Amino acid sequence: MQNKMGRVDTLPAPQDAVKMIEGAFSFEVPSEEVTLMDAKGRVLAEDILAKEYLPVFNRSGMDGYSVFADDVKGASKDSPVNLKLAGEVLMGEAADDPLTKGTCVYTPTGAAVPEGTESVIMVEDTKKNDDGTITFYKEIEAGKNVILKGSDVFPGKKVLTKGRVLNIADIGSLAALGYTAVKVAKKPLVGIISTGDELIGIDETPKSGQVRDINSTTLALQVEESGALAKVYGIVKDEEDKLTAFVKNAIDECDMVLISGGSSMGEKDATEKIIESFGTLVLHGIRMKPGKPTIVGNVGGKPVIGVPGNPISAYFVTRVFVKKILNQMLGSNEEELFVNAVLTKDVKENKQRSQFDFAKISAKDWTTYAEPVKTQSGLMTSMSECDAFFITPLGNGDRKEGETVTVHPL
Amino acid sequence: MQNKMGRVDTLPAPQDAVKMIEGAFSFEVPSEEVTLMDAKGRVLAEDILAKEYLPVFNRSGMDGYSVFADDVKGASKDSPVNLKLAGEVLMGEAADDPLTKGTCVYTPTGAAVPEGTESVIMVEDTKKNDDGTITFYKEIEAGKNVILKGSDVFPGKKVLTKGRVLNIADIGSLAALGYTAVKVAKKPLVGIISTGDELIGIDETPKSGQVRDINSTTLALQVEESGALAKVYGIVKDEEDKLTAFVKNAIDECDMVLISGGSSMGEKDATEKIIESFGTLVLHGIRMKPGKPTIVGNVGGKPVIGVPGNPISAYFVTRVFVKKILNQMLGSNEEELFVNAVLTKDVKENKQRSQFDFAKISAKDWTTYAEPVKTQSGLMTSMSECDAFFITPLGNGDRKEGETVTVHPL
Repeated sequence: MQNKMGRVDTLPAPQDAVKMIEGAFSFEVPSEEVTLMDAKGRVLAEDILAKEYLPVFNRSGMDGYSVFADDVKGASKDSPVNLKLAGEVLMGEAADDPLTKGTCVYTPTGAAVPEGTESVIMVEDTKKNDDGTITFYKEIEAGKNVILKGSDVFPGKKVLTKGRVLNIADIGSLAALGYTAVKVAKKPLVGIISTGDELIGIDETPKSGQVRDINSTTLALQVEESGALAKVYGIVKDEEDKLTAFVKNAIDECDMVLISGGSSMGEKDATEKIIESFGTLVLHGIRMKPGKPTIVGNVGGKPVIGVPGNPISAYFVTRVFVKKILNQMLGSNEEELFVNAVLTKDVKENKQRSQFDFAKISAKDWTTYAEPVKTQSGLMTSMSECDAFFITPLGNGDRKEGETVTVHPL
Repeated sequence: MQNKMGRVDTLPAPQDAVKMIEGAFSFEVPSEEVTLMDAKGRVLAEDILAKEYLPVFNRSGMDGYSVFADDVKGASKDSPVNLKLAGEVLMGEAADDPLTKGTCVYTPTGAAVPEGTESVIMVEDTKKNDDGTITFYKEIEAGKNVILKGSDVFPGKKVLTKGRVLNIADIGSLAALGYTAVKVAKKPLVGIISTGDELIGIDETPKSGQVRDINSTTLALQVEESGALAKVYGIVKDEEDKLTAFVKNAIDECDMVLISGGSSMGEKDATEKIIESFGTLVLHGIRMKPGKPTIVGNVGGKPVIGVPGNPISAYFVTRVFVKKILNQMLGSNEEELFVNAVLTKDVKENKQRSQFDFAKISAKDWTTYAEPVKTQSGLMTSMSECDAFFITPLGNGDRKEGETVTVHPL
């Protein structure tokens, strides 16, 4: 029995695999309305345009006195200027009367300033007198410490763009604009299936030859971190009929299906066969390490993805490719944050494939460092302390201690 | 009326304020058990020790043949070696018989290897013959491609330490070790109150002098991001009796209370007065910009914190100080990730206070750059695009374009 994964030198590089996958699908993005408290991390499904001026009034930027700049021209410690205090604007109240030449009005930070106000002089540069006047020890330029009506936003101004992943500042802006709820992309439902005769449940005790099924949990958590909902179907033994029925059911119920494959040749074939019987194979095999045996299929417009059984390999494939497909399904225009860092150890290139390694990030002596962490075993403790990963592309050559690499936070 | 915040040059620097706050509280950390799917981001409340060997058997690291290294010594393309194929170990099965000298056994990746196996030779370096033998084209050192029993963990090995913030890899390790649930710190309940006569609800339309209450939403989201539960009490007008009753009720119901203050002097006094009537004032005023008017009090062991009303100031104070107190309440030993970056613009120091600025991070030409972003208005759109913040300590002097700074991801 031979599956269709070709020799390693015929497989697409990771960046080409991304393009093949992106080109193979086109998704509609259903949306739903959520309250602001549920909007963090969700993908905005509409452009947000301001419907009003913010602030809605000319606003004091200081605890101080609203003045005409001319009235305090030349004021200094040595030659102070006195102005009559015409009143005070209370927080939350309108400033009813315009400012009169030769007078000043007390306006705390955030209060409305009277019509005509040019500047606000901070209270620390003044003295209040018993005769109802204020002494000014500083002059001020016109426009200082006054936040003009509409300087934040005005009707029709685009504040947030469709496709944005909402952060706390965005949600603060929505609150300022009067939105109590917002339209976001619905979370796709991702079915997760683990296959492999060696797998047992987390609550079971492994006998010789057996290992606990880690991927059902970690893939579900990764998928949810990427903005989807996970539906865990559990472990299926490596029998083609059983697996086929399981996968078919998951495809019917979900928007995407991940099949975390065991290690036997039979299983790898089974996933490929199932994809080909129901849909189209997009790719089988990526020229990367780890992650080579990845399978991507399109079944009725839904992605069906075979990820390697090894938990570390499965993590990388999900972090890189599944996250990209989910971004596409969500209509997200998020750009990944990445930084450059200096390697603290040599890293040998893989002569056959682009290599993905974990790293622990630290900063000292004005430099950001990345300590490469090797993760050879199937257990994930080795990656617990890692903050990021970096890629050594095929043909890059070995990397040397002191070399700068681009690292992607996990 | 005069509150007790002293002159700016008498206020504690941010790093001293942190020490004053840490010293003022000592928390018990109640715990609860959660399933693995609910454990991400939670703080571990127990040390995790392995109770068994993992793997529980000597395991093949390759699709290949288990051999004694001696039996294929000297094998090469030109002088291959033939060994009798004694059988195959199936995935998930024990390897019943020990390996016999002069024979090999097929052992796929992850399968148990027969007792005595020294190495596994990958299938790509072999050929299967019709006569029941395998031809080997490579020799191999002893120990290669065999993952020994207990090489991941052994009984009693500490795998995760109490106080750790659980990431996906940690949860994968817990799954591997047979944990279906884990003891984590209970989420503290944080009450959030907004005061200010100028404030109106998000769903209301501001008249002159009025602004919508942003902080109830953003502080709640920040507090939840830091691992707590938020209880939003809403807006209280600036009347001392009303505010006192509101705060007293929140202190009774919650583990911590945040009072996001308006701008009027009266309110600032009120928070301080309330703290002093029920408990002890820890500090009033921090030598930082923004965030100067911050108040921290201890009421019966519970932190009561007055944060500035300006949304950007409130964000910084919550990100820096409230997060630290929450970490202390959760028993978290999380260390903050930070990186170094090169400034793309000059930044003027503040002559009076340590200055906190937002930055947008990017990487090119082997360098990580931080573009300082000024956030002057009360609207949060200016910080939407920011990824990080950096501090220019008092006395640092102006920062120059090209200078390296330590940036803290948001």
